[in-house]
Amino acid sequence: MRHRGRSGSPDPGKPRTRTSANEELYICGVNPVTEALKSGTAVRALFVDGQSSKHLHHVIDTAKSRNIPIKSVGRDFFEGRFEKGHQGIAASVSPKKVMDINDLIDLAFSKSDSPFFLVLDCIEDPRNFGAILRVADAAGVDGVIFQSRRSAGLTPVVYKTSAGAVEHVNLSEVVNIKHALTKLKDRNIVIIGAEAGSPDSLWEADLRVPLALIVGSEGEGMRRTVRDMCDMVVQLPMKGVVNSLNVSVATGAISYEIMRQRNG
Amino acid sequence: MRHRGRSGSPDPGKPRTRTSANEELYICGVNPVTEALKSGTAVRALFVDGQSSKHLHHVIDTAKSRNIPIKSVGRDFFEGRFEKGHQGIAASVSPKKVMDINDLIDLAFSKSDSPFFLVLDCIEDPRNFGAILRVADAAGVDGVIFQSRRSAGLTPVVYKTSAGAVEHVNLSEVVNIKHALTKLKDRNIVIIGAEAGSPDSLWEADLRVPLALIVGSEGEGMRRTVRDMCDMVVQLPMKGVVNSLNVSVATGAISYEIMRQRNG
Repeated sequence: MRHRGRSGSPDPGKPRTRTSANEELYICGVNPVTEALKSGTAVRALFVDGQSSKHLHHVIDTAKSRNIPIKSVGRDFFEGRFEKGHQGIAASVSPKKVMDINDLIDLAFSKSDSPFFLVLDCIEDPRNFGAILRVADAAGVDGVIFQSRRSAGLTPVVYKTSAGAVEHVNLSEVVNIKHALTKLKDRNIVIIGAEAGSPDSLWEADLRVPLALIVGSEGEGMRRTVRDMCDMVVQLPMKGVVNSLNVSVATGAISYEIMRQRNG
Repeated sequence: MRHRGRSGSPDPGKPRTRTSANEELYICGVNPVTEALKSGTAVRALFVDGQSSKHLHHVIDTAKSRNIPIKSVGRDFFEGRFEKGHQGIAASVSPKKVMDINDLIDLAFSKSDSPFFLVLDCIEDPRNFGAILRVADAAGVDGVIFQSRRSAGLTPVVYKTSAGAVEHVNLSEVVNIKHALTKLKDRNIVIIGAEAGSPDSLWEADLRVPLALIVGSEGEGMRRTVRDMCDMVVQLPMKGVVNSLNVSVATGAISYEIMRQRNG
């Protein structure tokens, strides 16, 4: 679990949906803290309930070996900040830095002639955002672009469900997805949307070009005005009755086809 | 939301994890009930709070057009049965029937020379089970086999996250996955496991044969004894740092590669 508050504030109150550099972001609970230490999250300090610390040897030893300050605190430290499930352990971490969209594109082209971006059009469920970041890490995506409004921000649930991937994926948060698409198109990046019923199969599309895949929202798919900016709209073939995939599953299936074509 | 209790019981108490033919299974809330009506779930009756019914025209009209009995009930009907979020509407539905494993295999071979099964080895998160059922529907999987113990059963969350797919996928619930694998092997079905670090890439495997793909648990992957029964263990190539996908995303990526190879 992650919770956050302004640095130095004794009671950060309810978690908010955005972080900025001067905010304190907390992770609590044995598993989430262990994952943060493993995944390379920049952990600033570990907070341990003196009463519980005998159960927390392994986590404390890992933090010690990385010279992370360990602070013994009372139960009231946890009860003021977190809901249940903290297990007497928390870590304060540096919030993820997001990149300017132009820097993101420049960095991608410095590494590859055919970068691969994901553009999230109003993904509101933080679990899906987290699962998509795992896809982005595994499939070697060069950058994930998401909109500030009508989207899950970098919330505690995103951190948790990304299983550490949030730390390793380059992210750009933009005010308007359509402006971002214009910038991508100006750099000759092919904009690809996926939509049920499109006559063009994903499997027949050439996915080796520099491309940005638009991931539409869970309920509505791509917005019409976003769809109109696509250079290509493909369908993920489906053989069933319901024929609706979870958005992170669809993103995974398409990203792996992109990866497969580029591998060959 | 789904809740269930023995038929005729005025207060079903807490939802349990299994259904049987003589149990009453309830779905409540506008969206879940609408989805159930759309997806072909066998809805026995609709229960509507007389005080709220003016907001529920669309759902009621759909049910009427299908000759589903509509019962006007008081608020206490809902408060006794469900937690918050019922919105004054519920449907009682027939629980999904599961198949005997032998019948499942026979049915699959009657439709295809190369059936494709999913075998779930201890998938405990019902959201993942639901998302995997959506994959099974979309990818034309001939049957999903899951174990009774150490697995999510057909719970309300599975119904909800499957978005209706649970109704259209053939399911077999078995006491022991390993016995089921023996039955599959006896019918010359190739058992395929997926594991990080395997030297064999998914993309190089021939996936056009009759096969059963084992989906390992979220945290642990396949159990060792299950892995030992595989005819082939492949890896989903990964390019990142964390390199861990959500289990439903991995199932989707592999299932789509199976579908792609068979399509060509």
